Amino acid sequence: GHSREHGSSAVAASSVGGLLRWLASILGQAWHGDGAGAWNGDDLGGYRSAGSQGIATSHNYEAEESVVWRAHHSAAAFLDRSKWFTHGKQRALRRWLLTFLIGFCAGILALLIAYLSDAWTMLKFAALRAAIASHGAHSFLSFSVLLTINTVFTLLANACSRVEPVAVGAGIAEIKLFLNGRSLARIVRIKTLVCKAIGVTFAVGAGLPIGKEGPMVHNGAILAAGISQGKSTTWGFDTSFSKFQDFRNDREKRDFVACGAAAGVAAAFGAPIGGVLYSLEEGTSFWSTKLTWRTFFCAMMTVYTLYLMRTLSTGWSRPDQKAMFSFGQFYSLNESTGNFSVWEITLFVIVGIVVGLMGAVFNGANERLTKFRERRIRTTNLQTAEVLLVSTVMTCLSYGLPLLWPHCVPLPEVDDTYTDQERELVEALVPFQCDEGSYNELASLYLVEADVAIKQLFHFYSRGAQESYTTFSTSALFLFWSSYVVMACVTLGVSVPSGIFVPALMSGAGLGRLMGHVLHFIDSSSTAFFADAGTYALVGAAAGLASVCRISISATVMLLEATGDMQYVVPLMVAVMAARWVGNLFNDSIPDMQIRIKSYPFLEPELPIDKGFGAEMTAKNVMSRGCMAVRPGCPQ
Amino acid sequence: GHSREHGSSAVAASSVGGLLRWLASILGQAWHGDGAGAWNGDDLGGYRSAGSQGIATSHNYEAEESVVWRAHHSAAAFLDRSKWFTHGKQRALRRWLLTFLIGFCAGILALLIAYLSDAWTMLKFAALRAAIASHGAHSFLSFSVLLTINTVFTLLANACSRVEPVAVGAGIAEIKLFLNGRSLARIVRIKTLVCKAIGVTFAVGAGLPIGKEGPMVHNGAILAAGISQGKSTTWGFDTSFSKFQDFRNDREKRDFVACGAAAGVAAAFGAPIGGVLYSLEEGTSFWSTKLTWRTFFCAMMTVYTLYLMRTLSTGWSRPDQKAMFSFGQFYSLNESTGNFSVWEITLFVIVGIVVGLMGAVFNGANERLTKFRERRIRTTNLQTAEVLLVSTVMTCLSYGLPLLWPHCVPLPEVDDTYTDQERELVEALVPFQCDEGSYNELASLYLVEADVAIKQLFHFYSRGAQESYTTFSTSALFLFWSSYVVMACVTLGVSVPSGIFVPALMSGAGLGRLMGHVLHFIDSSSTAFFADAGTYALVGAAAGLASVCRISISATVMLLEATGDMQYVVPLMVAVMAARWVGNLFNDSIPDMQIRIKSYPFLEPELPIDKGFGAEMTAKNVMSRGCMAVRPGCPQ
Repeated sequence: GHSREHGSSAVAASSVGGLLRWLASILGQAWHGDGAGAWNGDDLGGYRSAGSQGIATSHNYEAEESVVWRAHHSAAAFLDRSKWFTHGKQRALRRWLLTFLIGFCAGILALLIAYLSDAWTMLKFAALRAAIASHGAHSFLSFSVLLTINTVFTLLANACSRVEPVAVGAGIAEIKLFLNGRSLARIVRIKTLVCKAIGVTFAVGAGLPIGKEGPMVHNGAILAAGISQGKSTTWGFDTSFSKFQDFRNDREKRDFVACGAAAGVAAAFGAPIGGVLYSLEEGTSFWSTKLTWRTFFCAMMTVYTLYLMRTLSTGWSRPDQKAMFSFGQFYSLNESTGNFSVWEITLFVIVGIVVGLMGAVFNGANERLTKFRERRIRTTNLQTAEVLLVSTVMTCLSYGLPLLWPHCVPLPEVDDTYTDQERELVEALVPFQCDEGSYNELASLYLVEADVAIKQLFHFYSRGAQESYTTFSTSALFLFWSSYVVMACVTLGVSVPSGIFVPALMSGAGLGRLMGHVLHFIDSSSTAFFADAGTYALVGAAAGLASVCRISISATVMLLEATGDMQYVVPLMVAVMAARWVGNLFNDSIPDMQIRIKSYPFLEPELPIDKGFGAEMTAKNVMSRGCMAVRPGCPQ
Repeated sequence: GHSREHGSSAVAASSVGGLLRWLASILGQAWHGDGAGAWNGDDLGGYRSAGSQGIATSHNYEAEESVVWRAHHSAAAFLDRSKWFTHGKQRALRRWLLTFLIGFCAGILALLIAYLSDAWTMLKFAALRAAIASHGAHSFLSFSVLLTINTVFTLLANACSRVEPVAVGAGIAEIKLFLNGRSLARIVRIKTLVCKAIGVTFAVGAGLPIGKEGPMVHNGAILAAGISQGKSTTWGFDTSFSKFQDFRNDREKRDFVACGAAAGVAAAFGAPIGGVLYSLEEGTSFWSTKLTWRTFFCAMMTVYTLYLMRTLSTGWSRPDQKAMFSFGQFYSLNESTGNFSVWEITLFVIVGIVVGLMGAVFNGANERLTKFRERRIRTTNLQTAEVLLVSTVMTCLSYGLPLLWPHCVPLPEVDDTYTDQERELVEALVPFQCDEGSYNELASLYLVEADVAIKQLFHFYSRGAQESYTTFSTSALFLFWSSYVVMACVTLGVSVPSGIFVPALMSGAGLGRLMGHVLHFIDSSSTAFFADAGTYALVGAAAGLASVCRISISATVMLLEATGDMQYVVPLMVAVMAARWVGNLFNDSIPDMQIRIKSYPFLEPELPIDKGFGAEMTAKNVMSRGCMAVRPGCPQ
């Protein structure tokens, strides 16, 4: 069996029952708990003992420079001397082909995950609607239908993370580590991919306050590692007969993984440039123009694949805007002028500061929680119990709050000024407890998919005739936002595959929209003085992403790409900057916090020189505790 | 006097007449031709002999690690031990203040340059209109008015580059060199800035096929170097009494210059993210997350300054879209669907390939021309003669072609479907030789500012009722495009400050729109099958930028930011990729070509390993000809 050494992700999995055996058997191997069966060489020596699963191996990024290699290249160059299609060009072509394949597969995978998540969610709400229709919303039976389904989905998601403990969470910290020269055991294996991809759909289906987008970074990275190395010990598959074994070294693998991570973000948000920037900003300390270029290509292929698939039914003709923009399209409310005043950019800075404070509190609270989990919740069974508890509380909130909020708001009258997008959002409002023709505000935020809730916050704006009309009243929005943020903070870190992007966006968007509401209280006479509350929600969402994940330029570009209007570039930039700055005054980003608490061996890009390095720091301060690289009986 | 050693930019300036003396006297020094008077230490030793102006000095990027420095930091850390606002934090704050200042100044400078260019151009066309009104278009007098003004402006622009030879061209190659560890003499001096900024406005005013945007990269870099180092020997100004002398080292200066280059691009196109990416992609081989972050901040401040200034008259209220998007805003023609079909992305790839071929021919031809200039046009007087010749030919073309194109096209009937932007473009059509109510197609492209011509190519689209109506007929467009490209290629490299971005964009946009016209010949029945010709112009423009400058991700983002619609992200990306790839099959980018021909000491980021390095290359291949670093009598 396993013994757990360090890192909560390296959880012992020896006491798992029959439920997991079928999952393991899908993966083509009996479940022995010894972790053998590498898809590719993330354990470089091939075999790894069961006890060492928490240990990170170092990558070797040196270019090959042996005498044999130089002689080989000399020979190749000599043979190539009169050819146009040289050995080097062939190799480049193969590299591009693999990059294309990674982009394509990341797109397909994202579609599959989105499809499955939607399917589980639709299934759940169909059952709930049926139950409410026959028993009424106040019946305990209706609630128990939701509770049962959520519990089952949560258990399934947790089961995936018991099969493969490194599939827990978003995997961003682990990929950051990978791109910086260290690889945790089993982090880029196909089993991890399968568990993560399936698990996250169940976690989303269970209505937990998490997203399916974050894990796409990890999924993309695994795809890239697997495709570039071209072998799977798990499946007994090896392409070493082909020419592709050229790329079986750490240097090439790192570059492919950077491409894969970018493709993952691109697939998650339909944001190719945001993906490249994310890979650059968050992940990679090694970077070259050539790699930018390949990452760019990979992310582009992913988004193109998404386009092709989403417009398949219409024969690849002009796509719906909703096929192109993950969070709905923003557009100019008035044709010739912008949607906000230039002086309001100072207000956006304030939104950024407030959301940044929220992010600092969020990260600080989650840090304490993570430390608590490291100390107390150490067995898989306790972890499962924790997940079930969180899921039950979340179910109670998402059913109980709409139940206790008895106001039925009449549906807005859809007239010609409504865009198709707004019509769809009006249709998505949930008539929980209410008659036809009206909707329950909290149910419309809690009992829908997270994407839809974010769109609701972004895209309803106040109209001339109905000045005070904003779809969600301030008090309902506050109730939703405050409970959501607390639950998102608690949920982050439980044993299911889960993403952090969507909770961060939602928390920020809620707070941003609330601030927009406050401003419209101050000036309710007309909508011309302050920008629409949807604009504040958008700015808040970007600030939320920046304050929790501490990414700057990529957060801006992701939001721009996911909503389509470039006029927001400066508002988003200032809010993102303010949020990140304020957050950094207090604590780290979530991935950095995880790296620190789990004692992953990570070297910061810059020496902490202003903190007195060279004066007060000694070797003790920069070394990690306990040498783990050399040990008796070390494999190979 | 001077002796010219190498590099056409290092041109002897000893034979310059009285015209230049007043320019030099503005700069606060008598013109002696010895090049003394450094604004800041781009010559590290302080004094540089006149004969060495073409020589590049190396930067020293090592962190200070002397015993004295470590002791100083120890002391500082000890004194800081109980403070919150530590020495390090104070230093960081000062760094951010300087970064803000650089961003702000870059914005103001861009506005000044744009204002002056517009003023000269308006002055010219007002005089021309008056001449045509009284003498008619066929009169030689009218032509000679244009010729005289163009000649005077050309001479003034050339005079600026005679005062400071390194102000010639866009300066992108030189900044690339600077960011990679080498600095040419006088490249970041205030005199260079003044000559470049004033010179480029005259060059634009003279109607040469160049842009004012490219030099903003160099201008921003100079601003950054000057502000960060905080002294000007030219003006006898030194801020060493302040705390800012902290940043007087190569490492800090390089980082500030990277910020300044990004701010320059941001100011030129209103594209903050594009600016950061340009600085990253083209310039900097040293890069860290912190620097990304500062560059981002700097570029943002630039764009915010632009916004503030442009909306000053309306009290910083909601800005006109034209204040936000340099090349006019693209928007959805149909609210709910995109402007192009997904299958058309293959056509955009073809556009990219064709434009890439054009770029390869363009760069190849310019390379030969540059080599010819290096050999034959070596004295300043010959260079002035060359500029005058090019300017005269350009004037003949821009006056003669509209004259020989006698078709008067009736102005489109402006109805309610026209946006404000289109109304303005209709008003900008030039009625050369034509009655009121009609316009001359070629004059509307040649006798306007370049920005307006690009907007015309982008934003006129075919409408339902007037299917075949496209503002510019295919033959007129072809005539304009073919003559423009040839002239742009010839002009690139003459002795005036000039940018390469606008010619690249215009050449690409023209070719792209032509291809759109061809497609609409194939399917003239409706505009639903192929996308609008304006879309093809946009895609072509991005490809043009990518094929001439060989930038990829920054070209995409720049165009997105300058036109505002994110739905074009994938079309632009594929076209940019195809264009760059095709171009790279044949030759280098313009800046790389200049670096090679002028024998600047530049180390490529990657070893040319696939070309048989380690096999056929010897030390001879990687060393530059003639050691120039050590010489008898070397200063200090």
